[in-house]
Amino acid sequence: MGMEPADHFEPGLYEGLCTTRAIRRYRPDPVPDADVAAMLYGATRAPSGSNRQPYRFLALRDGPNAVKAKALLGVSFREMWASKRAADGYDQGSGVEESSPKARMARTMQRFVDQFEQTPLVVLAGVQSYREDVYLGASIYPACQNLLLSARALGYGGVMTVWHVMVEAELRELLAVPDDVFLAATMAIGKPEGHHGPLRRRPLQELAFDDRWGQGADWLVEPLAAP
Amino acid sequence: MGMEPADHFEPGLYEGLCTTRAIRRYRPDPVPDADVAAMLYGATRAPSGSNRQPYRFLALRDGPNAVKAKALLGVSFREMWASKRAADGYDQGSGVEESSPKARMARTMQRFVDQFEQTPLVVLAGVQSYREDVYLGASIYPACQNLLLSARALGYGGVMTVWHVMVEAELRELLAVPDDVFLAATMAIGKPEGHHGPLRRRPLQELAFDDRWGQGADWLVEPLAAP
Repeated sequence: MGMEPADHFEPGLYEGLCTTRAIRRYRPDPVPDADVAAMLYGATRAPSGSNRQPYRFLALRDGPNAVKAKALLGVSFREMWASKRAADGYDQGSGVEESSPKARMARTMQRFVDQFEQTPLVVLAGVQSYREDVYLGASIYPACQNLLLSARALGYGGVMTVWHVMVEAELRELLAVPDDVFLAATMAIGKPEGHHGPLRRRPLQELAFDDRWGQGADWLVEPLAAP
Repeated sequence: MGMEPADHFEPGLYEGLCTTRAIRRYRPDPVPDADVAAMLYGATRAPSGSNRQPYRFLALRDGPNAVKAKALLGVSFREMWASKRAADGYDQGSGVEESSPKARMARTMQRFVDQFEQTPLVVLAGVQSYREDVYLGASIYPACQNLLLSARALGYGGVMTVWHVMVEAELRELLAVPDDVFLAATMAIGKPEGHHGPLRRRPLQELAFDDRWGQGADWLVEPLAAP
Protein backbone atom coordinates (compact mmCIF):
# COMPACT_ATOMS: atom_id res chain seq x y z
CA MET A 1 0.00 0.00 0.00
CA GLY A 2 2.91 2.36 0.53
CA MET A 3 1.14 4.09 3.44
CA GLU A 4 3.38 5.76 5.96
CA PRO A 5 3.88 6.26 8.81
CA ALA A 6 2.32 2.93 9.75
CA ASP A 7 1.55 2.69 13.45
CA HIS A 8 -0.11 -0.67 13.02
CA PHE A 9 0.58 -4.10 11.64
CA GLU A 10 -1.47 -5.11 8.61
CA PRO A 11 -2.32 -8.81 8.83
CA GLY A 12 -2.61 -11.23 5.94
CA LEU A 13 -6.02 -11.69 4.33
CA TYR A 14 -7.02 -14.85 6.19
CA GLU A 15 -5.66 -13.84 9.58
CA GLY A 16 -7.26 -10.43 9.19
CA LEU A 17 -10.76 -11.65 8.52
CA CYS A 18 -10.50 -14.23 11.32
CA THR A 19 -9.50 -11.63 13.92
CA THR A 20 -11.46 -8.47 13.13
CA ARG A 21 -13.43 -7.67 16.25
CA ALA A 22 -16.36 -5.30 16.67
CA ILE A 23 -14.64 -2.21 18.11
CA ARG A 24 -16.79 0.21 20.13
CA ARG A 25 -14.18 2.16 22.11
CA TYR A 26 -12.24 4.74 20.09
CA ARG A 27 -9.30 7.00 20.65
CA PRO A 28 -10.23 10.61 19.83
CA ASP A 29 -7.85 10.83 16.82
CA PRO A 30 -9.58 12.17 13.72
CA VAL A 31 -9.54 9.99 10.60
CA PRO A 32 -7.58 11.68 7.78
CA ASP A 33 -9.08 12.09 4.29
CA ALA A 34 -6.75 9.54 2.72
CA ASP A 35 -7.74 6.85 5.21
CA VAL A 36 -11.47 7.50 4.74
CA ALA A 37 -11.00 7.35 0.97
CA ALA A 38 -9.04 4.09 1.21
CA MET A 39 -11.72 2.51 3.43
CA LEU A 40 -14.51 3.58 1.07
CA TYR A 41 -12.50 2.35 -1.89
CA GLY A 42 -12.13 -1.07 -0.24
CA ALA A 43 -15.85 -1.15 0.56
CA THR A 44 -16.82 -0.36 -3.01
CA ARG A 45 -14.68 -3.17 -4.44
CA ALA A 46 -17.16 -5.69 -3.00
CA PRO A 47 -19.28 -7.95 -5.19
CA SER A 48 -22.98 -7.23 -5.75
CA GLY A 49 -25.81 -8.83 -7.71
CA SER A 50 -24.88 -8.81 -11.42
CA ASN A 51 -22.06 -6.39 -10.42
CA ARG A 52 -24.64 -3.57 -10.49
CA GLN A 53 -22.92 -1.85 -7.55
CA PRO A 54 -26.03 -0.28 -6.03
CA TYR A 55 -24.13 0.35 -2.77
CA ARG A 56 -23.49 3.93 -1.69
CA PHE A 57 -21.58 5.21 1.35
CA LEU A 58 -21.83 8.52 3.15
CA ALA A 59 -18.90 9.56 5.38
CA LEU A 60 -19.75 11.69 8.41
CA ARG A 61 -16.90 13.27 10.38
CA ASP A 62 -17.10 16.93 11.43
CA GLY A 63 -18.92 18.67 8.60
CA PRO A 64 -22.04 20.74 9.34
CA ASN A 65 -24.42 17.89 8.54
CA ALA A 66 -22.22 15.27 10.18
CA VAL A 67 -22.43 17.04 13.54
CA LYS A 68 -26.24 17.18 13.37
CA ALA A 69 -26.49 13.61 12.09
CA LYS A 70 -24.32 12.28 14.92
CA ALA A 71 -26.51 14.10 17.44
CA LEU A 72 -29.63 12.51 15.95
CA LEU A 73 -27.98 9.11 15.86
CA GLY A 74 -26.78 9.50 19.44
CA VAL A 75 -30.39 9.80 20.60
CA SER A 76 -31.36 6.72 18.61
CA PHE A 77 -28.37 4.65 19.74
CA ARG A 78 -28.99 5.50 23.39
CA GLU A 79 -32.64 4.49 23.18
CA MET A 80 -31.85 1.30 21.28
CA TRP A 81 -29.24 0.28 23.83
CA ALA A 82 -31.51 1.12 26.78
CA SER A 83 -34.17 -1.19 25.29
CA LYS A 84 -31.67 -3.93 24.60
CA ARG A 85 -30.08 -3.60 28.04
CA ALA A 86 -33.46 -4.22 29.66
CA ALA A 87 -34.75 -6.83 27.19
CA ASP A 88 -31.58 -8.94 27.23
CA GLY A 89 -31.20 -8.78 31.02
CA TYR A 90 -27.78 -7.11 31.08
CA ASP A 91 -28.34 -6.05 34.70
CA GLN A 92 -29.45 -9.47 35.88
CA GLY A 93 -27.63 -12.72 36.63
CA SER A 94 -23.86 -12.39 36.13
CA GLY A 95 -24.51 -8.81 34.98
CA VAL A 96 -24.50 -7.66 38.61
CA GLU A 97 -20.87 -8.78 39.01
CA GLU A 98 -18.66 -5.94 37.88
CA SER A 99 -15.95 -8.16 36.38
CA SER A 100 -18.26 -10.53 34.46
CA PRO A 101 -18.11 -10.50 30.63
CA LYS A 102 -21.76 -9.42 30.65
CA ALA A 103 -21.10 -6.40 32.87
CA ARG A 104 -18.00 -5.44 30.86
CA MET A 105 -20.01 -5.62 27.63
CA ALA A 106 -22.70 -3.44 29.19
CA ARG A 107 -20.11 -0.83 30.22
CA THR A 108 -18.59 -0.81 26.73
CA MET A 109 -22.01 -0.43 25.11
CA GLN A 110 -23.05 2.33 27.52
CA ARG A 111 -19.89 4.28 26.80
CA PHE A 112 -20.28 3.68 23.05
CA VAL A 113 -23.76 5.21 22.98
CA ASP A 114 -23.06 7.93 25.59
CA GLN A 115 -20.12 9.19 23.52
CA PHE A 116 -21.63 8.50 20.11
CA GLU A 117 -21.32 12.14 19.06
CA GLN A 118 -17.52 11.85 19.47
CA THR A 119 -17.21 8.83 17.17
CA PRO A 120 -14.44 9.89 14.76
CA LEU A 121 -16.09 8.47 11.64
CA VAL A 122 -19.65 7.38 11.02
CA VAL A 123 -20.49 5.80 7.68
CA LEU A 124 -24.05 5.31 6.46
CA ALA A 125 -24.48 2.47 3.98
CA GLY A 126 -27.35 2.74 1.53
CA VAL A 127 -28.44 0.61 -1.38
CA GLN A 128 -30.41 1.71 -4.40
CA SER A 129 -33.16 -0.81 -4.17
CA TYR A 130 -35.18 -2.37 -6.93
CA ARG A 131 -36.76 -4.70 -4.34
CA GLU A 132 -36.67 -4.83 -0.58
CA ASP A 133 -36.12 -8.42 0.46
CA VAL A 134 -33.38 -10.46 2.10
CA TYR A 135 -31.55 -10.90 -1.22
CA LEU A 136 -31.07 -7.13 -1.51
CA GLY A 137 -28.66 -7.55 1.39
CA ALA A 138 -26.32 -9.48 -0.96
CA SER A 139 -25.65 -6.17 -2.74
CA ILE A 140 -24.81 -4.11 0.36
CA TYR A 141 -23.58 -6.19 3.32
CA PRO A 142 -20.53 -7.70 1.57
CA ALA A 143 -19.49 -4.07 0.95
CA CYS A 144 -20.12 -3.22 4.63
CA GLN A 145 -17.92 -6.15 5.66
CA ASN A 146 -15.25 -4.94 3.22
CA LEU A 147 -15.45 -1.50 4.88
CA LEU A 148 -14.87 -2.97 8.34
CA LEU A 149 -12.01 -5.14 7.07
CA SER A 150 -10.48 -2.17 5.21
CA ALA A 151 -10.68 -0.13 8.41
CA ARG A 152 -8.90 -2.94 10.23
CA ALA A 153 -6.18 -3.10 7.56
CA LEU A 154 -5.57 0.63 7.97
CA GLY A 155 -5.26 0.49 11.76
CA TYR A 156 -8.87 1.26 12.71
CA GLY A 157 -11.77 -0.68 14.10
CA GLY A 158 -15.52 -0.38 13.87
CA VAL A 159 -18.89 -1.93 14.25
CA MET A 160 -21.95 -2.35 12.03
CA THR A 161 -25.39 -1.53 13.42
CA VAL A 162 -28.93 -0.79 12.29
CA TRP A 163 -29.51 1.53 15.24
CA HIS A 164 -30.35 4.48 12.99
CA VAL A 165 -33.89 3.15 12.56
CA MET A 166 -35.47 5.22 15.35
CA VAL A 167 -34.44 8.52 13.75
CA GLU A 168 -34.43 7.42 10.14
CA ALA A 169 -37.04 9.89 8.88
CA GLU A 170 -35.21 12.93 10.38
CA LEU A 171 -31.85 11.57 9.26
CA ARG A 172 -32.99 11.10 5.67
CA GLU A 173 -34.33 14.62 5.55
CA LEU A 174 -31.18 16.15 7.06
CA LEU A 175 -28.84 14.28 4.72
CA ALA A 176 -31.05 14.38 1.62
CA VAL A 177 -31.15 10.61 1.23
CA PRO A 178 -33.31 9.82 -1.82
CA ASP A 179 -36.47 7.77 -1.42
CA ASP A 180 -35.18 4.92 -3.56
CA VAL A 181 -32.20 4.33 -1.23
CA PHE A 182 -32.61 1.75 1.53
CA LEU A 183 -30.48 2.65 4.56
CA ALA A 184 -28.98 -0.72 5.43
CA ALA A 185 -26.40 0.06 8.10
CA THR A 186 -24.72 2.68 10.26
CA MET A 187 -21.07 1.97 10.94
CA ALA A 188 -18.98 3.60 13.65
CA ILE A 189 -15.21 3.68 13.09
CA GLY A 190 -12.12 4.98 14.87
CA LYS A 191 -8.69 4.08 16.18
CA PRO A 192 -9.35 1.30 18.67
CA GLU A 193 -8.63 1.66 22.36
CA GLY A 194 -8.57 -2.12 22.64
CA HIS A 195 -7.14 -4.66 20.24
CA HIS A 196 -8.25 -6.95 17.47
CA GLY A 197 -7.74 -10.64 18.05
CA PRO A 198 -9.44 -14.02 18.34
CA LEU A 199 -13.23 -13.79 18.20
CA ARG A 200 -15.99 -15.04 20.48
CA ARG A 201 -17.88 -17.39 18.17
CA ARG A 202 -19.62 -20.75 18.41
CA PRO A 203 -17.56 -23.82 17.49
CA LEU A 204 -17.36 -24.53 13.76
CA GLN A 205 -19.24 -27.83 14.24
CA GLU A 206 -22.42 -25.96 15.20
CA LEU A 207 -22.26 -23.66 12.20
CA ALA A 208 -21.16 -25.82 9.27
CA PHE A 209 -22.38 -29.08 7.81
CA ASP A 210 -21.31 -31.68 5.26
CA ASP A 211 -23.48 -33.08 2.44
CA ARG A 212 -26.75 -32.67 4.36
CA TRP A 213 -28.18 -29.95 6.60
CA GLY A 214 -27.21 -30.61 10.23
CA GLN A 215 -24.74 -33.36 9.36
CA GLY A 216 -21.29 -33.16 10.95
CA ALA A 217 -17.98 -34.58 9.76
CA ASP A 218 -14.68 -35.47 11.43
CA TRP A 219 -12.84 -32.92 9.29
CA LEU A 220 -15.13 -30.02 10.29
CA VAL A 221 -12.65 -28.72 12.83
CA GLU A 222 -10.99 -25.41 13.57
CA PRO A 223 -7.84 -25.09 11.42
CA LEU A 224 -4.73 -26.21 13.35
CA ALA A 225 -3.08 -22.86 12.79
CA ALA A 226 -6.24 -20.77 13.29
CA PRO A 227 -5.38 -17.23 14.29
CA MET B 1 -1.22 -20.23 8.78
CA GLY B 2 1.43 -22.92 8.41
CA MET B 3 -0.29 -24.35 5.35
CA GLU B 4 1.90 -26.24 2.94
CA PRO B 5 2.53 -26.79 0.14
CA ALA B 6 1.42 -23.28 -0.81
CA ASP B 7 0.96 -22.98 -4.56
CA HIS B 8 -0.39 -19.46 -4.21
CA PHE B 9 0.52 -16.12 -2.76
CA GLU B 10 -1.63 -14.92 0.11
CA PRO B 11 -2.09 -11.15 -0.15
CA GLY B 12 -2.36 -8.71 2.72
CA LEU B 13 -5.82 -7.94 4.07
CA TYR B 14 -6.39 -4.71 2.15
CA GLU B 15 -4.90 -5.85 -1.13
CA GLY B 16 -6.83 -9.10 -0.86
CA LEU B 17 -10.24 -7.54 -0.45
CA CYS B 18 -9.53 -5.02 -3.23
CA THR B 19 -8.60 -7.71 -5.75
CA THR B 20 -10.90 -10.67 -5.12
CA ARG B 21 -12.71 -11.29 -8.37
CA ALA B 22 -15.80 -13.36 -9.02
CA ILE B 23 -14.30 -16.61 -10.34
CA ARG B 24 -16.49 -18.85 -12.50
CA ARG B 25 -13.92 -21.01 -14.31
CA TYR B 26 -12.39 -23.77 -12.18
CA ARG B 27 -9.64 -26.30 -12.51
CA PRO B 28 -10.96 -29.80 -11.78
CA ASP B 29 -8.84 -30.22 -8.61
CA PRO B 30 -10.92 -31.40 -5.65
CA VAL B 31 -10.91 -29.21 -2.53
CA PRO B 32 -9.32 -31.06 0.41
CA ASP B 33 -11.10 -31.33 3.78
CA ALA B 34 -8.66 -29.01 5.53
CA ASP B 35 -9.21 -26.23 3.00
CA VAL B 36 -13.00 -26.53 3.18
CA ALA B 37 -12.80 -26.43 6.99
CA ALA B 38 -10.54 -23.36 6.90
CA MET B 39 -12.89 -21.54 4.50
CA LEU B 40 -15.93 -22.34 6.64
CA TYR B 41 -14.04 -21.30 9.74
CA GLY B 42 -13.22 -17.94 8.15
CA ALA B 43 -16.85 -17.50 7.08
CA THR B 44 -18.16 -18.19 10.57
CA ARG B 45 -15.86 -15.59 12.16
CA ALA B 46 -17.99 -12.86 10.55
CA PRO B 47 -20.05 -10.40 12.58
CA SER B 48 -23.82 -10.77 12.87
CA GLY B 49 -26.65 -8.91 14.61
CA SER B 50 -25.99 -9.01 18.39
CA ASN B 51 -23.34 -11.66 17.58
CA ARG B 52 -26.16 -14.23 17.45
CA GLN B 53 -24.40 -16.11 14.65
CA PRO B 54 -27.52 -17.39 12.90
CA TYR B 55 -25.46 -18.21 9.79
CA ARG B 56 -25.08 -21.84 8.73
CA PHE B 57 -23.09 -23.30 5.84
CA LEU B 58 -23.50 -26.58 4.02
CA ALA B 59 -20.54 -27.90 2.02
CA LEU B 60 -21.35 -29.95 -1.08
CA ARG B 61 -18.53 -31.81 -2.86
CA ASP B 62 -18.98 -35.44 -3.92
CA GLY B 63 -21.17 -36.98 -1.23
CA PRO B 64 -24.40 -38.77 -2.20
CA ASN B 65 -26.56 -35.70 -1.57
CA ALA B 66 -24.02 -33.31 -3.03
CA VAL B 67 -24.15 -35.05 -6.41
CA LYS B 68 -27.94 -34.85 -6.51
CA ALA B 69 -27.96 -31.26 -5.25
CA LYS B 70 -25.48 -30.15 -7.91
CA ALA B 71 -27.63 -31.78 -10.59
CA LEU B 72 -30.69 -29.89 -9.33
CA LEU B 73 -28.74 -26.65 -9.10
CA GLY B 74 -27.33 -27.17 -12.58
CA VAL B 75 -30.85 -27.12 -14.01
CA SER B 76 -31.68 -23.96 -12.09
CA PHE B 77 -28.43 -22.18 -12.98
CA ARG B 78 -28.85 -22.97 -16.70
CA GLU B 79 -32.40 -21.64 -16.73
CA MET B 80 -31.47 -18.53 -14.76
CA TRP B 81 -28.59 -17.78 -17.12
CA ALA B 82 -30.70 -18.40 -20.21
CA SER B 83 -33.24 -15.84 -18.92
CA LYS B 84 -30.56 -13.34 -18.04
CA ARG B 85 -28.75 -13.84 -21.35
CA ALA B 86 -31.93 -12.92 -23.21
CA ALA B 87 -33.15 -10.18 -20.83
CA ASP B 88 -29.79 -8.40 -20.63
CA GLY B 89 -29.16 -8.61 -24.38
CA TYR B 90 -25.91 -10.57 -24.21
CA ASP B 91 -26.30 -11.58 -27.85
CA GLN B 92 -26.99 -8.09 -29.09
CA GLY B 93 -24.82 -5.03 -29.68
CA SER B 94 -21.16 -5.71 -28.93
CA GLY B 95 -22.22 -9.20 -27.82
CA VAL B 96 -22.04 -10.35 -31.44
CA GLU B 97 -18.31 -9.58 -31.58
CA GLU B 98 -16.46 -12.63 -30.33
CA SER B 99 -13.70 -10.65 -28.62
CA SER B 100 -15.90 -8.07 -26.84
CA PRO B 101 -16.03 -8.10 -23.02
CA LYS B 102 -19.76 -8.85 -23.30
CA ALA B 103 -19.21 -11.91 -25.50
CA ARG B 104 -16.39 -13.13 -23.27
CA MET B 105 -18.59 -12.77 -20.20
CA ALA B 106 -21.37 -14.69 -21.96
CA ARG B 107 -18.96 -17.52 -22.80
CA THR B 108 -17.71 -17.68 -19.21
CA MET B 109 -21.26 -17.74 -17.86
CA GLN B 110 -22.34 -20.39 -20.35
CA ARG B 111 -19.44 -22.63 -19.41
CA PHE B 112 -20.06 -21.98 -15.70
CA VAL B 113 -23.67 -23.18 -15.88
CA ASP B 114 -23.03 -25.97 -18.42
CA GLN B 115 -20.39 -27.49 -16.17
CA PHE B 116 -22.06 -26.63 -12.88
CA GLU B 117 -22.18 -30.30 -11.81
CA GLN B 118 -18.34 -30.35 -11.95
CA THR B 119 -17.93 -27.36 -9.63
CA PRO B 120 -15.44 -28.67 -7.04
CA LEU B 121 -17.18 -27.10 -4.04
CA VAL B 122 -20.67 -25.68 -3.67
CA VAL B 123 -21.59 -24.02 -0.38
CA LEU B 124 -25.17 -23.20 0.57
CA ALA B 125 -25.52 -20.32 3.02
CA GLY B 126 -28.57 -20.33 5.25
CA VAL B 127 -29.65 -18.09 8.09
CA GLN B 128 -31.95 -18.99 10.94
CA SER B 129 -34.43 -16.23 10.53
CA TYR B 130 -36.48 -14.45 13.12
CA ARG B 131 -37.64 -11.99 10.46
CA GLU B 132 -37.28 -11.90 6.70
CA ASP B 133 -36.30 -8.38 5.72
CA VAL B 134 -33.28 -6.60 4.28
CA TYR B 135 -31.67 -6.33 7.73
CA LEU B 136 -31.57 -10.12 8.04
CA GLY B 137 -28.92 -9.94 5.33
CA ALA B 138 -26.59 -8.25 7.84
CA SER B 139 -26.36 -11.59 9.65
CA ILE B 140 -25.49 -13.73 6.63
CA TYR B 141 -23.86 -11.79 3.77
CA PRO B 142 -20.82 -10.55 5.74
CA ALA B 143 -20.17 -14.25 6.42
CA CYS B 144 -20.60 -15.05 2.71
CA GLN B 145 -18.06 -12.35 1.85
CA ASN B 146 -15.71 -13.80 4.47
CA LEU B 147 -16.12 -17.19 2.79
CA LEU B 148 -15.15 -15.81 -0.62
CA LEU B 149 -12.20 -13.91 0.86
CA SER B 150 -11.08 -17.00 2.82
CA ALA B 151 -11.25 -19.03 -0.38
CA ARG B 152 -9.09 -16.42 -2.06
CA ALA B 153 -6.57 -16.50 0.80
CA LEU B 154 -6.28 -20.27 0.41
CA GLY B 155 -5.68 -20.17 -3.33
CA TYR B 156 -9.25 -20.60 -4.55
CA GLY B 157 -11.87 -18.40 -6.13
CA GLY B 158 -15.63 -18.34 -6.17
CA VAL B 159 -18.81 -16.50 -6.81
CA MET B 160 -21.96 -15.80 -4.82
CA THR B 161 -25.35 -16.29 -6.46
CA VAL B 162 -29.02 -16.70 -5.59
CA TRP B 163 -29.60 -18.95 -8.56
CA HIS B 164 -30.87 -21.79 -6.39
CA VAL B 165 -34.30 -20.15 -6.23
CA MET B 166 -35.85 -22.07 -9.13
CA VAL B 167 -35.25 -25.44 -7.46
CA GLU B 168 -35.41 -24.34 -3.87
CA ALA B 169 -38.31 -26.56 -2.80
CA GLU B 170 -36.69 -29.75 -4.15
CA LEU B 171 -33.30 -28.71 -2.80
CA ARG B 172 -34.64 -28.11 0.70
CA GLU B 173 -36.30 -31.51 0.72
CA LEU B 174 -33.22 -33.33 -0.57
CA LEU B 175 -30.88 -31.67 1.93
CA ALA B 176 -33.31 -31.56 4.89
CA VAL B 177 -33.10 -27.79 5.25
CA PRO B 178 -35.39 -26.79 8.15
CA ASP B 179 -38.32 -24.46 7.52
CA ASP B 180 -36.90 -21.72 9.75
CA VAL B 181 -33.74 -21.43 7.65
CA PHE B 182 -33.71 -18.83 4.87
CA LEU B 183 -31.45 -19.94 2.00
CA ALA B 184 -29.59 -16.73 1.25
CA ALA B 185 -26.91 -17.76 -1.24
CA THR B 186 -25.31 -20.52 -3.27
CA MET B 187 -21.57 -20.15 -3.67
CA ALA B 188 -19.45 -22.00 -6.22
CA ILE B 189 -15.75 -22.42 -5.39
CA GLY B 190 -12.68 -24.01 -6.95
CA LYS B 191 -9.09 -23.43 -8.01
CA PRO B 192 -9.31 -20.60 -10.53
CA GLU B 193 -8.35 -21.05 -14.15
CA GLY B 194 -7.92 -17.29 -14.41
CA HIS B 195 -6.43 -14.90 -11.91
CA HIS B 196 -7.53 -12.50 -9.22
CA GLY B 197 -6.64 -8.87 -9.74
CA PRO B 198 -7.98 -5.35 -10.14
CA LEU B 199 -11.77 -5.22 -10.28
CA ARG B 200 -14.23 -3.75 -12.75
CA ARG B 201 -16.07 -1.20 -10.58
CA ARG B 202 -17.46 2.30 -10.94
CA PRO B 203 -15.18 5.17 -9.85
CA LEU B 204 -15.21 5.87 -6.13
CA GLN B 205 -16.73 9.33 -6.73
CA GLU B 206 -19.98 7.75 -7.93
CA LEU B 207 -20.27 5.46 -4.94
CA ALA B 208 -19.19 7.53 -1.93
CA PHE B 209 -20.21 10.90 -0.53
CA ASP B 210 -19.07 13.39 2.09
CA ASP B 211 -21.30 14.98 4.73
CA ARG B 212 -24.46 14.87 2.60
CA TRP B 213 -25.97 12.31 0.23
CA GLY B 214 -24.68 12.87 -3.29
CA GLN B 215 -22.03 15.39 -2.24
CA GLY B 216 -18.51 14.84 -3.56
CA ALA B 217 -15.17 15.96 -2.14
CA ASP B 218 -11.69 16.53 -3.55
CA TRP B 219 -10.28 13.82 -1.31
CA LEU B 220 -12.73 11.16 -2.50
CA VAL B 221 -10.22 9.61 -4.86
CA GLU B 222 -8.82 6.18 -5.48
CA PRO B 223 -5.88 5.56 -3.10
CA LEU B 224 -2.56 6.38 -4.79
CA ALA B 225 -1.27 2.90 -4.14
CA ALA B 226 -4.55 1.10 -4.83
CA PRO B 227 -3.96 -2.53 -5.78
